[in-house]
Amino acid sequence: MSETVKPDHSFFHSLADIAGETVLPFFRRSIVIDNKEQDDFDPVTEADREAERRMREMIAGTFPEDGILGEEFASERLDADGLWILDPIDGTRAFISGLPVWGTLIGYRHKDGTQMGMMSQPFTSERFFGDGHHSFYAGPDGRNPLQSRACANLSDATLFTTTPALFDAQERAAYDKVEGAARLARYGVDCYAYCMIALGMADLVIETALKPVDIAPLIPIIEGAGGIVTNWQGGSAFDGGQVVACGDKQLHEQVLDMLAVKAA
Amino acid sequence: MSETVKPDHSFFHSLADIAGETVLPFFRRSIVIDNKEQDDFDPVTEADREAERRMREMIAGTFPEDGILGEEFASERLDADGLWILDPIDGTRAFISGLPVWGTLIGYRHKDGTQMGMMSQPFTSERFFGDGHHSFYAGPDGRNPLQSRACANLSDATLFTTTPALFDAQERAAYDKVEGAARLARYGVDCYAYCMIALGMADLVIETALKPVDIAPLIPIIEGAGGIVTNWQGGSAFDGGQVVACGDKQLHEQVLDMLAVKAA
Repeated sequence: MSETVKPDHSFFHSLADIAGETVLPFFRRSIVIDNKEQDDFDPVTEADREAERRMREMIAGTFPEDGILGEEFASERLDADGLWILDPIDGTRAFISGLPVWGTLIGYRHKDGTQMGMMSQPFTSERFFGDGHHSFYAGPDGRNPLQSRACANLSDATLFTTTPALFDAQERAAYDKVEGAARLARYGVDCYAYCMIALGMADLVIETALKPVDIAPLIPIIEGAGGIVTNWQGGSAFDGGQVVACGDKQLHEQVLDMLAVKAA
Repeated sequence: MSETVKPDHSFFHSLADIAGETVLPFFRRSIVIDNKEQDDFDPVTEADREAERRMREMIAGTFPEDGILGEEFASERLDADGLWILDPIDGTRAFISGLPVWGTLIGYRHKDGTQMGMMSQPFTSERFFGDGHHSFYAGPDGRNPLQSRACANLSDATLFTTTPALFDAQERAAYDKVEGAARLARYGVDCYAYCMIALGMADLVIETALKPVDIAPLIPIIEGAGGIVTNWQGGSAFDGGQVVACGDKQLHEQVLDMLAVKAA
């Protein structure tokens, strides 16, 4: 096992501070939107790039041996003991539409099994943090431990997905069964949806085609609040792909059965 | 023409203050959710009822001759010269899911043609106000006049709708044509979507089956910012039903042609 020094809570907050300072002035301003992929609308802003650059600089200054997996630039030292996972603006569609339901995602995984993660929403001044054991919320309505809520039955569940249009035909058929049996379905919310599970305000998120940076930082937040997040086969969600997150483990079992389709 | 005293900006803010004080303690708390309609999920909270009761009390104290059209209680004096239109929590699905994209809607219409309206989001401390001539924003990022943005072509437009599932088959066919030609479509945002048009962050909202309280208070906000909101036939949107709102009048003409289906 490595002797590497581990990051503490305050280092996550410092990273979130610098990302927020960088990104917030671009929120609700006229910005240049690039198309990262020609055949799919995936906006990337100057703010996104600059915030990741500054977070990488801070990490390199304090934890120079750690690796970094980011949304905007090439990976560094993926085989290091400590690995940072950065997404300065998760929910770029919300961001460019002026809606305060995007967030900065900062994740950390050590080879010894430690996982930590933060979601920071600088416009609403909210932070959701999982330290590998517990999860915590800080926002305009106070500071509290995060605790997901009981919801054993799908018929009582509030379900989130970015948009059903992202599923392929086989996934869509499975998803539609789940949505049809859920109490309420909502679309168009990315990282904020997972945080609403940790906050006990939602029960279920189902998504596909996620990148590791979209989900890895959120896993400790949900797990530290008593929830569970896996891929559709029940394995680790760290690598992205098909992801299902629940506040209640009984609900998770029920939904995994319904999503039993072959991995993409 | 009546001699009735008209409300000023500060009276709207006082109504929004009392609604916010009443509603906010219920946001992200465990709440009892009633089903207003048996066959459709339409949650109503205690907060909703109490906030409307307190706003009605304040209006009755200051403008006792005015009429009131509200979401939660019976209408009063709909033939009065001045009419208030109240929806304490527009976007109850967002509210019960913990998302800060609901709002308190407060509208006013006088028989002389005056229209005023406010959207207040107490968690983010944002207010959008139209005084019948101009529109204004106040929030954590400052105070500014509201100005919708130019977007003459649908292919450049960001489109919002609550969910396409609300449209009937004929409406859906028309809507799908528009969504297919738009740059970006987002679901699940109610009053906040119209305010994003006024803020110049979105271009188009298309909805159906709206109640007057869902839209009347938002009309002055959009129009005072340079936008336009009508029904799908180009007439007044005040009575709800099929509604289309645009930040750019050229876009509005283009979309009206595409939505040319018979009124429901």
